[in-house]
Amino acid sequence: MSGFPAAAAELRGTGDLGIVVERAAGRVMVVENSTRQRLAAVEGLGDLSHASAVFSRDARYAYVFGRDGGLSKVDLLTATVVKRVQQAGNSIGGAISEDGRLVAVANYEPGGVRVFDADTLDPVADIPAEYGPPAAEGASRPRSKVVGLEDAPGNRFVFSLYDAGEIWIADLSTRSSPAVRKFTGIGRQPYDALVTPDGRHYIAGLFGEDGLAVLDLWNPDRGVRRMLDGYGRGEQPLPVYKMPHLEGWGFADGKVFLPAIGRHEVLVVDAATWREVGRIPVAGQPVFVMARPDGRQIWVNFALPDNHLVQVLDVPSLAVVSTLTPGKGVLHLEFTPRGEQVWMSVRDLDTVKVYDTGSLKEVGTLPADKPSGIFFTSRAHRIGL
Amino acid sequence: MSGFPAAAAELRGTGDLGIVVERAAGRVMVVENSTRQRLAAVEGLGDLSHASAVFSRDARYAYVFGRDGGLSKVDLLTATVVKRVQQAGNSIGGAISEDGRLVAVANYEPGGVRVFDADTLDPVADIPAEYGPPAAEGASRPRSKVVGLEDAPGNRFVFSLYDAGEIWIADLSTRSSPAVRKFTGIGRQPYDALVTPDGRHYIAGLFGEDGLAVLDLWNPDRGVRRMLDGYGRGEQPLPVYKMPHLEGWGFADGKVFLPAIGRHEVLVVDAATWREVGRIPVAGQPVFVMARPDGRQIWVNFALPDNHLVQVLDVPSLAVVSTLTPGKGVLHLEFTPRGEQVWMSVRDLDTVKVYDTGSLKEVGTLPADKPSGIFFTSRAHRIGL
Repeated sequence: MSGFPAAAAELRGTGDLGIVVERAAGRVMVVENSTRQRLAAVEGLGDLSHASAVFSRDARYAYVFGRDGGLSKVDLLTATVVKRVQQAGNSIGGAISEDGRLVAVANYEPGGVRVFDADTLDPVADIPAEYGPPAAEGASRPRSKVVGLEDAPGNRFVFSLYDAGEIWIADLSTRSSPAVRKFTGIGRQPYDALVTPDGRHYIAGLFGEDGLAVLDLWNPDRGVRRMLDGYGRGEQPLPVYKMPHLEGWGFADGKVFLPAIGRHEVLVVDAATWREVGRIPVAGQPVFVMARPDGRQIWVNFALPDNHLVQVLDVPSLAVVSTLTPGKGVLHLEFTPRGEQVWMSVRDLDTVKVYDTGSLKEVGTLPADKPSGIFFTSRAHRIGL
Repeated sequence: MSGFPAAAAELRGTGDLGIVVERAAGRVMVVENSTRQRLAAVEGLGDLSHASAVFSRDARYAYVFGRDGGLSKVDLLTATVVKRVQQAGNSIGGAISEDGRLVAVANYEPGGVRVFDADTLDPVADIPAEYGPPAAEGASRPRSKVVGLEDAPGNRFVFSLYDAGEIWIADLSTRSSPAVRKFTGIGRQPYDALVTPDGRHYIAGLFGEDGLAVLDLWNPDRGVRRMLDGYGRGEQPLPVYKMPHLEGWGFADGKVFLPAIGRHEVLVVDAATWREVGRIPVAGQPVFVMARPDGRQIWVNFALPDNHLVQVLDVPSLAVVSTLTPGKGVLHLEFTPRGEQVWMSVRDLDTVKVYDTGSLKEVGTLPADKPSGIFFTSRAHRIGL
C-alpha cells in the first residue's frame, strides 16, 4: 500500500529521512535513519533501474531520476508524488543546484541536459550535447550521451559527453540562458564522474582508455589534466562485469579512492598532486568506493561474481581490515549523515542491512523488495552529490 | 509574541531552518534560509549571552546552551520550549553526539561536563573536571572551567580544562559510565577549540602562552603536539579586546585558518604538517574566521574597535579580496548549507544581513533585536560543530 496512514502524516523533522529504491516494483520506500524504520512507500515512479535521487534544500522533497527519463518529485512527509515529468527517453541521474532552485537531468536520449525549476518542475533550460561536424551536408550535428552530471559552487552543473570525449561546465546564474564552457579532447568515453567534497575538482573516469580526466573548477583556464594514465586496464583486455560508479565520494585524508575498471584494486591518488600513491588489492571488481563521512574508513562493494561481499578499508594503513558477507546482490551503500552506521541494499535477500561502522556488526534490517539505491536527505546540504 | 499562529505549524521540511539568538531579550527567532523569512520567536530561554546551539539528527529540535547554565530544547516546528533544565550555574556551549542521542554541556561552575539524553534531557553522566592535588588536607580537588567542548566520531566528546591545561576525551559508548582519557600539561589556559571537519584533529587555542595544542584523535597515543609556538602574541603584551572563537571551522584547501590573539592577523597552518605557511594581515583583531563550505573563501569579523567590518579572504591567493561594512556590532556569521549565501548578525542595527558570497552583495535583511549567534539545522549532520 502506498502513502502514509492519515495519522502518520504529522509534524516531524526531515533531517533523518531518506528513500530506498525498490527497482523492480517501480517504487521507493520512505525511511528514517534514527530508529531505522520504514515509514511508507511511494509507487508510480516508472522504470527505476539505475535510479538515483537528490533532495530539496528544506529536505522535504526527493527528486527521483528514473532510467526511462522520468523525473519525479516525491513529498517525503505525505509520501505522494507531487509532480512527475517525462523529460527524455533515457536518462542517467541528475543534480540540484547550489541554491536549490534548479534540478538538472543527464540524458542519453536525446543526448543532453535538461534543467527544471525545483519548485514546479517547469522546464528552464535545454542544453543539447551536440558535438563535432554534421554527419552529412545539411544533417544536424550528432548528440552525445551525457554522464557524470554534478553540481558545483556558483550554481554550475558540470557533466561529461560520453561519445564526444568532452567535459562541459554550464553556469546557470542566468537561469534561462546557461553559459556553457566546453573542454574537448579530454579522453575517450568518460563514463562517470565525481566532484570532490569541496566542489573544487571534477574527475571523470574514462572507459575507452586508461586514466582519468581532472578539471580544477577554481582554475578552469588551466584546462583538463590527465591522471593515472596507464594504470593497468590496458595491460590486457579485462572483462568488465559492471561499470563502477565514481559519484560515491571516495575522498578521505587528502586522497581520492577510486575503483579500478576491470581490476581487483582500489586506486589511491594524492589529491594535491593527482599522482598515484597506492593500490589496495580487494576481493573483486569494485563498484562503489565510498568514504565514511569522517574519512577514517572506505567501504567497497563489488561486481559479479563477488557482489555478496563488502570490504572495509582502513585509510591510514591503506589496508583491508574486514570482509563482510551481507548476502548476494549488494547494490548500494549509504552512510548515516555523520557516519556511525551504514545502510546497504542486499537485493537477493530482499533486505536492507544496517551496520555499525565502529564494531562492523549488523545492527538492524529492513525488508525491501529488490532494493537498490539508498539516499538520505542530508545529501541536500552536500556539494557534488 | 511567541509561537506560531496555529495555521503556521503545518507540515514542512526542516532542512532549511535555523535560529537567531536575540540576546538581550532572552529569545530566539526561528528562521528559514530558502526565502529568508522569520517564522516565529521562542521566549523564556534565560541568559543568552554567548549562547550557542546544536540540532537533533532529525533537524526538528534546537538545543540552546545559555550562559546561565540553562539547557533548552526548542521545537522549531511548533516554536515552543519542549524541555528546559537548569543544569549548572555558568556554562559555555555544548555538543551533540555522533548518534544524536546525547547532548553534552561545558560548564564553568561547577567546572565539568554534564551529559543529557537528547530526547528527554534526563541526566546521563556527570564528568567533574577535577585536577591536581587537593588545596589542603581533606579538601576536595579543585575543578577547572571547561571550554572547547566538541563532538568526535565514536560517540566521543573532547574538551579542554582552562585552569588545568588539560585536554580530555570522554567516550560515551557506554553512556552512563564514560571512559575518560586525560592529556595533561598541554599548555596554559586553553580557551577554545575546534575539531577539523573530518573529526580527526582537535585543536585548542592557548591564552596563557603563544601557540596551540593539537591532538590527533586517530592516534591519541601520540599525545598532544604543539604548533605555532611563539607566533607573536608574546612579542609584547597586546591588549585583547575580545576572545576569538575557534569553533568557526576555518578549514579550507588542506589548511587551517586561525585568528591570532591580539594581532591583526589570520594565521594559516598546513594541516598535514601543522606548520605555519602564511599570515594574512587583516583589519582588526579577528574573532570568527570561517571557511565557506566549499573552502574557496574565508570570512572574518573583528573585535572592537573594528566590529563594523567583515573581510573576505581568497584561499588560493591568501589575500583579502573585499572589506565589507555591514554596520556596528557584527557578532556572528553563518553560511547557508552549501555556501551560496552568508547571514550575519549586526547587533547595533538590530538587523540580520544576508550576503551573496559570489557577488559579495547584500541580498536581504531581517529585523532582529540585538542579534548574536546564528545557527542553521544543517549543523545536525556535521562533525565537530
